Amino acid sequence: MMEAQKILLLLFCLNLVSSLVIAGAPPTCAANLDSKCADSDEWKGEFFPGIPKIKYEGPSSKNHLAFKWYNPEEVILGKKMKDWMRFSVAFWHTFRGTGSDPFGVPTKSWPWEDGTNSMAMAKRRMRANFEFIDKLGVDFWCFHDRDIAPDGETLKEANANLDEVVALAKELQGTKVRPLWGTAQLFSHPRYMHGAATSSEVAVYAYAAAQVKKAMEVTHYLGGENYVFWGGREGYQSLLNTDMGREIDHMANFFESAAAYKKKIGFKGNLLIEPKPQEPTKHQYDWDAATAANFLRKYGLINDFKLNIECNHATLSGHSCHHDIETARLNGLLGNIDANTGDPQVGWDTDQFLTDIGEATSIMLSVIKNGGLAPGGFNFDAKLRRESTDVEDLFIAHIVGMDTVARGLRTAAKLIEDGSLPELVRKRYQSFDSEIGQKIEAGKADFEMLEKKAMEWGEPKVPSAKQELAEMIFQSAI
Amino acid sequence: MMEAQKILLLLFCLNLVSSLVIAGAPPTCAANLDSKCADSDEWKGEFFPGIPKIKYEGPSSKNHLAFKWYNPEEVILGKKMKDWMRFSVAFWHTFRGTGSDPFGVPTKSWPWEDGTNSMAMAKRRMRANFEFIDKLGVDFWCFHDRDIAPDGETLKEANANLDEVVALAKELQGTKVRPLWGTAQLFSHPRYMHGAATSSEVAVYAYAAAQVKKAMEVTHYLGGENYVFWGGREGYQSLLNTDMGREIDHMANFFESAAAYKKKIGFKGNLLIEPKPQEPTKHQYDWDAATAANFLRKYGLINDFKLNIECNHATLSGHSCHHDIETARLNGLLGNIDANTGDPQVGWDTDQFLTDIGEATSIMLSVIKNGGLAPGGFNFDAKLRRESTDVEDLFIAHIVGMDTVARGLRTAAKLIEDGSLPELVRKRYQSFDSEIGQKIEAGKADFEMLEKKAMEWGEPKVPSAKQELAEMIFQSAI
Amino acid sequence: MMEAQKILLLLFCLNLVSSLVIAGAPPTCAANLDSKCADSDEWKGEFFPGIPKIKYEGPSSKNHLAFKWYNPEEVILGKKMKDWMRFSVAFWHTFRGTGSDPFGVPTKSWPWEDGTNSMAMAKRRMRANFEFIDKLGVDFWCFHDRDIAPDGETLKEANANLDEVVALAKELQGTKVRPLWGTAQLFSHPRYMHGAATSSEVAVYAYAAAQVKKAMEVTHYLGGENYVFWGGREGYQSLLNTDMGREIDHMANFFESAAAYKKKIGFKGNLLIEPKPQEPTKHQYDWDAATAANFLRKYGLINDFKLNIECNHATLSGHSCHHDIETARLNGLLGNIDANTGDPQVGWDTDQFLTDIGEATSIMLSVIKNGGLAPGGFNFDAKLRRESTDVEDLFIAHIVGMDTVARGLRTAAKLIEDGSLPELVRKRYQSFDSEIGQKIEAGKADFEMLEKKAMEWGEPKVPSAKQELAEMIFQSAI
Amino acid sequence: MMEAQKILLLLFCLNLVSSLVIAGAPPTCAANLDSKCADSDEWKGEFFPGIPKIKYEGPSSKNHLAFKWYNPEEVILGKKMKDWMRFSVAFWHTFRGTGSDPFGVPTKSWPWEDGTNSMAMAKRRMRANFEFIDKLGVDFWCFHDRDIAPDGETLKEANANLDEVVALAKELQGTKVRPLWGTAQLFSHPRYMHGAATSSEVAVYAYAAAQVKKAMEVTHYLGGENYVFWGGREGYQSLLNTDMGREIDHMANFFESAAAYKKKIGFKGNLLIEPKPQEPTKHQYDWDAATAANFLRKYGLINDFKLNIECNHATLSGHSCHHDIETARLNGLLGNIDANTGDPQVGWDTDQFLTDIGEATSIMLSVIKNGGLAPGGFNFDAKLRRESTDVEDLFIAHIVGMDTVARGLRTAAKLIEDGSLPELVRKRYQSFDSEIGQKIEAGKADFEMLEKKAMEWGEPKVPSAKQELAEMIFQSAI
Repeated sequence: MMEAQKILLLLFCLNLVSSLVIAGAPPTCAANLDSKCADSDEWKGEFFPGIPKIKYEGPSSKNHLAFKWYNPEEVILGKKMKDWMRFSVAFWHTFRGTGSDPFGVPTKSWPWEDGTNSMAMAKRRMRANFEFIDKLGVDFWCFHDRDIAPDGETLKEANANLDEVVALAKELQGTKVRPLWGTAQLFSHPRYMHGAATSSEVAVYAYAAAQVKKAMEVTHYLGGENYVFWGGREGYQSLLNTDMGREIDHMANFFESAAAYKKKIGFKGNLLIEPKPQEPTKHQYDWDAATAANFLRKYGLINDFKLNIECNHATLSGHSCHHDIETARLNGLLGNIDANTGDPQVGWDTDQFLTDIGEATSIMLSVIKNGGLAPGGFNFDAKLRRESTDVEDLFIAHIVGMDTVARGLRTAAKLIEDGSLPELVRKRYQSFDSEIGQKIEAGKADFEMLEKKAMEWGEPKVPSAKQELAEMIFQSAI
Repeated sequence: MMEAQKILLLLFCLNLVSSLVIAGAPPTCAANLDSKCADSDEWKGEFFPGIPKIKYEGPSSKNHLAFKWYNPEEVILGKKMKDWMRFSVAFWHTFRGTGSDPFGVPTKSWPWEDGTNSMAMAKRRMRANFEFIDKLGVDFWCFHDRDIAPDGETLKEANANLDEVVALAKELQGTKVRPLWGTAQLFSHPRYMHGAATSSEVAVYAYAAAQVKKAMEVTHYLGGENYVFWGGREGYQSLLNTDMGREIDHMANFFESAAAYKKKIGFKGNLLIEPKPQEPTKHQYDWDAATAANFLRKYGLINDFKLNIECNHATLSGHSCHHDIETARLNGLLGNIDANTGDPQVGWDTDQFLTDIGEATSIMLSVIKNGGLAPGGFNFDAKLRRESTDVEDLFIAHIVGMDTVARGLRTAAKLIEDGSLPELVRKRYQSFDSEIGQKIEAGKADFEMLEKKAMEWGEPKVPSAKQELAEMIFQSAI
Repeated sequence: MMEAQKILLLLFCLNLVSSLVIAGAPPTCAANLDSKCADSDEWKGEFFPGIPKIKYEGPSSKNHLAFKWYNPEEVILGKKMKDWMRFSVAFWHTFRGTGSDPFGVPTKSWPWEDGTNSMAMAKRRMRANFEFIDKLGVDFWCFHDRDIAPDGETLKEANANLDEVVALAKELQGTKVRPLWGTAQLFSHPRYMHGAATSSEVAVYAYAAAQVKKAMEVTHYLGGENYVFWGGREGYQSLLNTDMGREIDHMANFFESAAAYKKKIGFKGNLLIEPKPQEPTKHQYDWDAATAANFLRKYGLINDFKLNIECNHATLSGHSCHHDIETARLNGLLGNIDANTGDPQVGWDTDQFLTDIGEATSIMLSVIKNGGLAPGGFNFDAKLRRESTDVEDLFIAHIVGMDTVARGLRTAAKLIEDGSLPELVRKRYQSFDSEIGQKIEAGKADFEMLEKKAMEWGEPKVPSAKQELAEMIFQSAI
Repeated sequence: MMEAQKILLLLFCLNLVSSLVIAGAPPTCAANLDSKCADSDEWKGEFFPGIPKIKYEGPSSKNHLAFKWYNPEEVILGKKMKDWMRFSVAFWHTFRGTGSDPFGVPTKSWPWEDGTNSMAMAKRRMRANFEFIDKLGVDFWCFHDRDIAPDGETLKEANANLDEVVALAKELQGTKVRPLWGTAQLFSHPRYMHGAATSSEVAVYAYAAAQVKKAMEVTHYLGGENYVFWGGREGYQSLLNTDMGREIDHMANFFESAAAYKKKIGFKGNLLIEPKPQEPTKHQYDWDAATAANFLRKYGLINDFKLNIECNHATLSGHSCHHDIETARLNGLLGNIDANTGDPQVGWDTDQFLTDIGEATSIMLSVIKNGGLAPGGFNFDAKLRRESTDVEDLFIAHIVGMDTVARGLRTAAKLIEDGSLPELVRKRYQSFDSEIGQKIEAGKADFEMLEKKAMEWGEPKVPSAKQELAEMIFQSAI
């Protein structure tokens, strides 16, 4: 068998793996590989029969398929909820997530899957995606190139596949829906095992460049508002066999070329780096927001990129999600939020849907300070638990995720309108509004002058930080 | 009682606490507060009777009070061991460490302590310090202002106390010994509870500036080769009551003034920031090397500061010590190493003496790449366990710490001389030595050219990373 | 100075340290050591002037000094809130907490403190304690022997001091208030540096036994409902110098004697072990609930002890608080809860007041399953942040902690009354209600019979676990 | 397509995935699916051509394919090295490991793999296994049922497949080699997604019982010396939808039946539980050694099971490997060691080959105290890094792993023969060899007697714990 054939067989099987039909699932296309549905990208009727358009019914609703807090057209702090949120569905988790984990094979068996990675299947899946988006009532989606279209025997063939699926997506998008962002998948294929931009092999670097070039083009074509870089393999497993300096230099060269190509094609969206500390590698170069910012500054790229902060990545790097969002914001780099959450007792990326109202509130306090996220938004980079295998679970998970962020917005707005928490903070720093404080902030206070003041003033008065009161006010708003 | 009196009584007691004499300790000065020794900085005879000058006896020695691996004058890779190492004793752990912890009072009872924080006691302690340094055979020490001299009722009085003790230290130093670095203690006093440069109170900012000004002056006067900033309280406990942006701006103003003052007084040593992720605060602004580098770049301070990497701080931030040293080095910021280690199962700073030969070897591989650390060195920011209460334990701990770094140097040299590990790494990246690789590294390879190459080359060949082989070679050298 | 004098001076100073008066505090007893207040346990007027009895005002109240959710007499699920809760004030954090940490001296300066550790001060502090309890409206308090009364030059003197303070406490308790539990402080004094029951020194073991004997007696005398063992130093710093087997055997001997002594004096309350994984030691023998249960079973003590689960200890051991409470409950060992919380990004015990409603709800779900906690309850083993230095902060912190647990109860009750979450769980396991399921549960299903069934049944049907739905239902109840 | 067919196709593909041939690999069977090698379990010549039998060449050897420290016949402390070690190859990692991870597809492409999961392939792989074992010079191997033979459309067919492969293994084993242990794979198949013995579905419980029954039979048939239970899915993802009590009761029922069946078939080996805290589930019921011990005691199974301690599992649960081995030993439960290691900065199971000499030494100190591990041994539950793709890497990894444990034994023996470390420990506890100490240890010292002694003795003397000295002695032996 030729190399390319083997790779195709592999890719076929990788997808098949994701289509294992659990005993007892209803008869589906997948159950009938020889039927005509396998040859066609058509699907009779709805993908999600029985699931209505998700409506806002308010907090007292017991309907699992309704919003209790997210009311898209409702105005909060002068802006519609949907404009604060700009929610996006992540194609990969929702439509390519299989439930496999390091110790287990796939568990999901969606009715529309036929066990192939054919072009027909890719198109059918894309149709399911847009029905899902429509029923959920969001305007955005996010994708990786290789997740929406099958790879090819050659790069050329892969690109052709991508073009064909993208053309369908463009058509299905209609006038309202568009990508929040697109990206290239540079971590799953064995060629990327040592990294993409930081691979030790120059041919891999070139391959990655070609793949990003294409992914940027199709994102632009689809009207995408951002383009994301997540360097899943841009890091190391061991420093013993790694030339970290050379690798990071290569990464900078790569990003520089990406920024240049963006200009060349007239793409106006933001380029976003998504930090993550580790997993799959032991150590990724984009560890957290501050590390990514240092990289951008060191290589003169600070004006060409912003950051996509993912909550579960932030917590894996030892920060609260709120902290890393604030770090991005204060560096002028807050571009997008991947709204998920991890398990505080677990040391890997669990990519759960956020359900903690307190966390959502602190996130929204930052987003409000940032004046919103546009052209970024909230992408649900979150997946069903491996054991959640009903089609309706896909909706339930997104609904609770959206309602959580919506409650966060409502609570944050309440705190801002109440005013006592912002006032508590303002007062803490008011001594810097004095003449000497202003001099310090203007960079005009040298050590000699400050020493003189210190001698003159004697022992400073230091009031309580009132943290418990701040927590009480915060909690009361929930 | 006046405020100032109360503070003095507090300071007296804080020190007294550190002098608790465990039952059974031999009769000492401490046991006889009314004797004349309490009124004098003199001490009859040796502080460490029975402890000889520590000599190199080689690996087969069973003598606990001898070096088995550290042979100061021996030349390794073209440089004397002592010049690679530039070992320093940390005054605070060695002479002010009491063994207290959050759940327990002090346990140490050194014979020379008299239970006071008097000037006489400060001077006697300084004499003990230099006898220790002399017997250990090192050339450097490190100090905090408030640890070597008692605080005062006023800043002026504190400065006078400091001057008096520093004058003695200058005399005792002789011609060979000098500070590796000095620093100001800006975290213990209640006035610093909200931070020093990042305090919400302008008067505290000024006080801190005055204290740093003085500490820089005395470090300079003593011939210190560096000056360190560790921002123990420069961070937050909760974002709810914190204006992080304003605080970090203040920190930048502070560092700018420090750099200016350094120039003004003609101090030629490095200014060093010591990153730590947390403890005592929940989150410190100098989280790790990359965070500190980003801060320095953002505020235009990148040429005025270098970093002091502490191993236990690195591991608390989720990195290996080797990683953070390499990060500092690759950013041109490796200034000094605080040679200690943490417990991999423990979530706080244990400041143990490093005893892991493998870790020491990887550290030395970086130091060798850096061409050494001068004007920095290795400071033993490490303390006896609370339960180690014999005077000889102070020597044993330093000896094993020094021997460990020395074994690290010997092993690293063996690896470099053997050459197979560096060669393994060099070979991994050799494809970048090609014409196209060189173009990429020169920033002259755009995405279009790379795509063309990728199409032309087809599927890249990706060889094994040989990590296990690298580990075998590394381990064999130990 | 004699040993004993030095220890007294130490203890005096340790307390003095806790009384540092921050500049700007109002004139207090502490500020006037020579006034008669230092010689007397009396205090003119209230300790907490301006703080009223804390009342329930409901969720819409903006009053920081009122309960919004805790309404003691309100009946929830057939029981008064106060009977579900049995809240207790921890004497040590509230009245002996100083704000010191490993990097800083005390920050608190309560008006009633005079800077001594005199008997008069101990009594005055006890009066403050009961005014606090009264104003807060709780019925319980918890204490360590050495925190309520000064240590003595001899054990006899320490016991006499304790008796005198306890007599006052008894008087001040009145008819309603009593200890939720008492305990002996076996970790702070240097004699306990190697452990108490697990010390390598037999004389320390004996000393600890004597101290526990006395503490059990006074707890009994005060009408305490439980007695707690927290083995802060019962563990090791390094296995290299430790005989872990012998130490744990000693610990078992110690607990056996304690159980015997309890019977002897007719104390009817529960003996409770409080697990903690580490800190101050690297590894404590009572790591978590399961470890403590194994110890009790191994040594035949399982019927003589129950557990006191502390949330922050549970999370430090890698479990959720809910998990460790459930582990205790399922082993028949749930005796008491120390209601606090940690910081998920911090690796040490922060002992914060619980403010997370979700966590409180899951805790209350367990407590309800347990039929309540009596004779145990919720002890606030929680402390103000170091930077919270106002007297009112003590009240604010307790109020938000109590309201949080109360909201947890209300939410849990809502979930139970709604019924859909319990029903979801019941249904998941209903296949075990079948005949074969019942056989398995009765221990009557051998492998041969099961194999036959498996062959007969073919591939099992495995439904969705509906975790996201469970999370939606849970969150909706908040 | 029928359910069963789909599952077979899935299993076919899962294996195919593992056979992706990386570009540039030499022409192999896998590269020629239509050749006769795919239909045959034969393989012409050696599987590992060019790899000789691994010999001991001593520490100065630079040969990557030789032992430097492991000399099987050499006698250490009265026993041959091979009898201390009883090394075992883990079939799954070595022959079924593909290099896939949560973010990437397989990377390995062994020449003997043909891209199928056929019986022929299973047999060819088994032949490779025994050539590997022979060349490495070990006597043991470990296996999961489903890893050595393909699953079947029915349980009956799966059993038949297993029997056929096991018959070949029996033949290939010869007279010297046998399984250290066998086990059933109860975590990968979707049927086990909610657990096996703790599944919410009774049919899954029965299926698991049938699978364990068969796996015990074939382990017995092959002369296996132990049988292992690792409950990869015996735990929960969320307590909200879990009846933990009922699940753990089921697990006890299951283990009881397993112990009964062992007796029934006359299997004399140990049944071993392998604790792990989490991954794949959020929380596994066999969290660590103490948790497993508590479970065994609670359900009266303590005499029927021992433990298999895996180092990387121990560190994930917050303990050092040494700690959990000692916990098992002190509970009389140390049955086997899975010799691997994790990455101290990484929160998941990395299953790396152990290369840390210090860790190996502390492990061997425990093993020596235990009098060895027989009938258990050291199983290399360790895998190549994803990026290690050369056939020789399999040998290099095992050689460095075996040499590390061998160095651990040599260092431990040196420490024991030197005697100063054991003596340091003995002396620490000598006060318990006194009369009163002996009374305490005999359970004859009540609190009244101890109080009397404490009063009589006064303040205890507490010597230094000499931890740094212990570390110095320990390190010097390396």
